[in-house]
Amino acid sequence: MTYCVAMSLDGGLVFLSDSRTNAGLDQISTFRKMTVYEKEGDRVMVLLAAGNLALTQAVRQLLNGHTLECDDGPVSIWNCKTMFDAARIVGSAIRKVFERDGDSLRKFGIEFNLNLIFGGQIKGEPTRLFNVYAAGNFVEAGEDGVCYFQIGESKYGKPIIDRVVNRSTPLDQAAKCALVSMDSTLKSNLSVGLPLDLLIYHADTLHAQRIVHIDEHDPYFRMIRSSWGQRLREVFESIPNPVWDETSSESGLRPPSQHEQLNPIRKVNAPQQAS
Amino acid sequence: MTYCVAMSLDGGLVFLSDSRTNAGLDQISTFRKMTVYEKEGDRVMVLLAAGNLALTQAVRQLLNGHTLECDDGPVSIWNCKTMFDAARIVGSAIRKVFERDGDSLRKFGIEFNLNLIFGGQIKGEPTRLFNVYAAGNFVEAGEDGVCYFQIGESKYGKPIIDRVVNRSTPLDQAAKCALVSMDSTLKSNLSVGLPLDLLIYHADTLHAQRIVHIDEHDPYFRMIRSSWGQRLREVFESIPNPVWDETSSESGLRPPSQHEQLNPIRKVNAPQQAS
Repeated sequence: MTYCVAMSLDGGLVFLSDSRTNAGLDQISTFRKMTVYEKEGDRVMVLLAAGNLALTQAVRQLLNGHTLECDDGPVSIWNCKTMFDAARIVGSAIRKVFERDGDSLRKFGIEFNLNLIFGGQIKGEPTRLFNVYAAGNFVEAGEDGVCYFQIGESKYGKPIIDRVVNRSTPLDQAAKCALVSMDSTLKSNLSVGLPLDLLIYHADTLHAQRIVHIDEHDPYFRMIRSSWGQRLREVFESIPNPVWDETSSESGLRPPSQHEQLNPIRKVNAPQQAS
Repeated sequence: MTYCVAMSLDGGLVFLSDSRTNAGLDQISTFRKMTVYEKEGDRVMVLLAAGNLALTQAVRQLLNGHTLECDDGPVSIWNCKTMFDAARIVGSAIRKVFERDGDSLRKFGIEFNLNLIFGGQIKGEPTRLFNVYAAGNFVEAGEDGVCYFQIGESKYGKPIIDRVVNRSTPLDQAAKCALVSMDSTLKSNLSVGLPLDLLIYHADTLHAQRIVHIDEHDPYFRMIRSSWGQRLREVFESIPNPVWDETSSESGLRPPSQHEQLNPIRKVNAPQQAS
């Protein structure tokens, strides 16, 4: 399994990936799931991959030299003019892998399972972020809608992002949120694991400067792991427990007697003959 | 979809269920998913249901009068001696529904999809909690292992339970945690919805007294919804952002230059001919 998340913000982009892969519980390995494509001063692109490792590796291998026929002739990720075209090239690389491997996988009952996050910036454009699917089609994070994508084991880490991140969140704060989200996922699912790769891209720098590899010794992530859990428990304890007194209070659950009159619960009493 | 959670604690049991069902996004309804079976002073049993609504309703309908052949003759949930036997009777009711409907569903490509939480207390036994599967088999929450079960859309609400609940958590605090867990799920998944049913069973009372029906007007749940999100954001902001200074600090991420030497990220530079 995998957990990757990327956020598209006013200040730039944040990417975070774990590195655990497993083919069954007895075959657990570490593979990096983040790839950075950079032509400094011209373009920076980041690819995060979830799904069948053989497929994502094949796509990554292919992508570097892959070209797509456009109006101006064949273009690659290195000379296309927009991130939209770059995302099309990623989609085209996926389709090429599907042509090669799709039939054989089907014969073995293996799903063509792959899900990518792809984002970055090409000079002259703003930063852009895409979620590219196994069929090679994709969606883009919009200015007015969702500003992040998750792939892989996404649910455990979603609530905290929904609560604290929006497009105007500063990059460092968003990175912190991505790490908290990852921490929740690590804690609830063994198939997601350290080390992590974190990349923070500042818009218009056209250089992937802030990349960190985070392992179990990383002091910042260790601080997050310990203090987030601890403070969450403190906040939890600071919220009053439900009050069950018959004299209903503002912060208490209304007493059951009132409720049952309004909304009778499905309560089945023992039949008479069963005593 | 559905989200139900139940916790088995030293002080008793907590059950919480939502009430949203959907057969496609254009067919959303409200159905109660909690059923309470009570013979006051002798036994209290609670059933929470997730999965195909027609199936869970059929099981519930059947369960009240269903008997299972045991050494002492046929027993029902109303006269069995242990919660283990009661869970077997629930499993047997599921199997009976499978006998009736399984073939027909298969012909329409519909999965026999059903997942139940079943718990309570029979006089002379401690409280017990089971997760009963579609095959009619079941597992029990153990004293030394996991003390809660979730069914349905469980992942969004799991991290907070993992962080704050253990077997010695007081009942009211566990109920609060179940509601926070539900709140996270409601916020991240539209297919889980109000109203909620909350039941807190105090061990050895053999009476289901504390049942609350929680709708959008419930003051306690409204307080949880607003203050939990607010305080979570406060805690989040109180944790320092990563520091990117080259002079590495205890609470900062180590600077990328050091890391890249140790753990080079997969960074692909533009090929020379692409300039």
